[in-house]
Amino acid sequence: MSRGTTPAAPDDGLTTRERRNRPVLLVNTGDGKGKTTAACGVALRAWAQGWSIGVYQFVKSAAWKPGERDALLALGALSGDVTWETMGTGWSWARATDPTDARAAAVEGWRAIREGIEQQRHRFWLLDEFTYPMDWGWIDADEVAETLRTRPGTQHVVITGRRCPAAIVAEADLVTDMTKIKHPFDDGQRGQVGIEW
Amino acid sequence: MSRGTTPAAPDDGLTTRERRNRPVLLVNTGDGKGKTTAACGVALRAWAQGWSIGVYQFVKSAAWKPGERDALLALGALSGDVTWETMGTGWSWARATDPTDARAAAVEGWRAIREGIEQQRHRFWLLDEFTYPMDWGWIDADEVAETLRTRPGTQHVVITGRRCPAAIVAEADLVTDMTKIKHPFDDGQRGQVGIEW
Repeated sequence: MSRGTTPAAPDDGLTTRERRNRPVLLVNTGDGKGKTTAACGVALRAWAQGWSIGVYQFVKSAAWKPGERDALLALGALSGDVTWETMGTGWSWARATDPTDARAAAVEGWRAIREGIEQQRHRFWLLDEFTYPMDWGWIDADEVAETLRTRPGTQHVVITGRRCPAAIVAEADLVTDMTKIKHPFDDGQRGQVGIEW
Repeated sequence: MSRGTTPAAPDDGLTTRERRNRPVLLVNTGDGKGKTTAACGVALRAWAQGWSIGVYQFVKSAAWKPGERDALLALGALSGDVTWETMGTGWSWARATDPTDARAAAVEGWRAIREGIEQQRHRFWLLDEFTYPMDWGWIDADEVAETLRTRPGTQHVVITGRRCPAAIVAEADLVTDMTKIKHPFDDGQRGQVGIEW
């Protein structure tokens, strides 16, 4: 990673220190692997800074038991504050909602996240697979973009998932497309324990 | 992530369980962000499986203090076995080598890793930025590919860095190209604490 000179000299009246602590919106999109794992790798950096971390997993089913969840919760138990919420098992704050109604669950997830962003509940937010409910029209991408644009304080947000809506890409500071070059699924191989979950 | 049907039915005589526990070689390459962080995210999954983890960072300077290192070492202290070696600070087993001779250090790093692979020292290997010493001709990519092709047991290996040599791509099970769509460096912004390290 280059920490050298940057192509343009910013003319924003900020010190380097201020600029290094500006809130950023990251998007990991594309059809390839590494969108969620890269976001979790950034979460490790956030944890090392002692920041409050909130992970909100959309879409993934209750059967999904990702190792990164165990690891980040173990780190949170060591120090700091790690929240991990999974839509597939039902949001912990919304036990009464019908778990089979994915659309209602996604809308409720975003409602709570928006409220949390307004209250600066976390310094680091990971909205995993959040592109899908936007792509499907369940959640208005323009409203998400507006909420993120006007978020208070220094809250970093990472959004993952394929087909990221243009309104979010436009708002993002950093967008990476994970492009599949070669994948064992092509050869009929399924996921590997410890690698894919 | 799809866990559904695969495009081709494998005809390899393996059970699904055996196939899920085959050693894989992952490559995260490309000019975009997320190569190292995605590899560290996979390392979290490996940790959750209780596997021995070895991270070998090539190239990065001693000044580089990545949060993911602190986090993974904290997890290793909790349970399991996490080794993190950084070439920039000098390999811990090779204190006598001249730290200013990057080429010699890279060659020594690969020598020790090759020996470790032959001895199955780790179940999960992360060779971070390992493409560069191969790209620069310091380490023979064909020899690396051959060592990986013939590695014993079930050792998963992740290699990160730009310009991955063709011999490694050919050997890899899964190659992802991290493609930069948008990056704050374009606007003259430098790295963000907690996000980029």
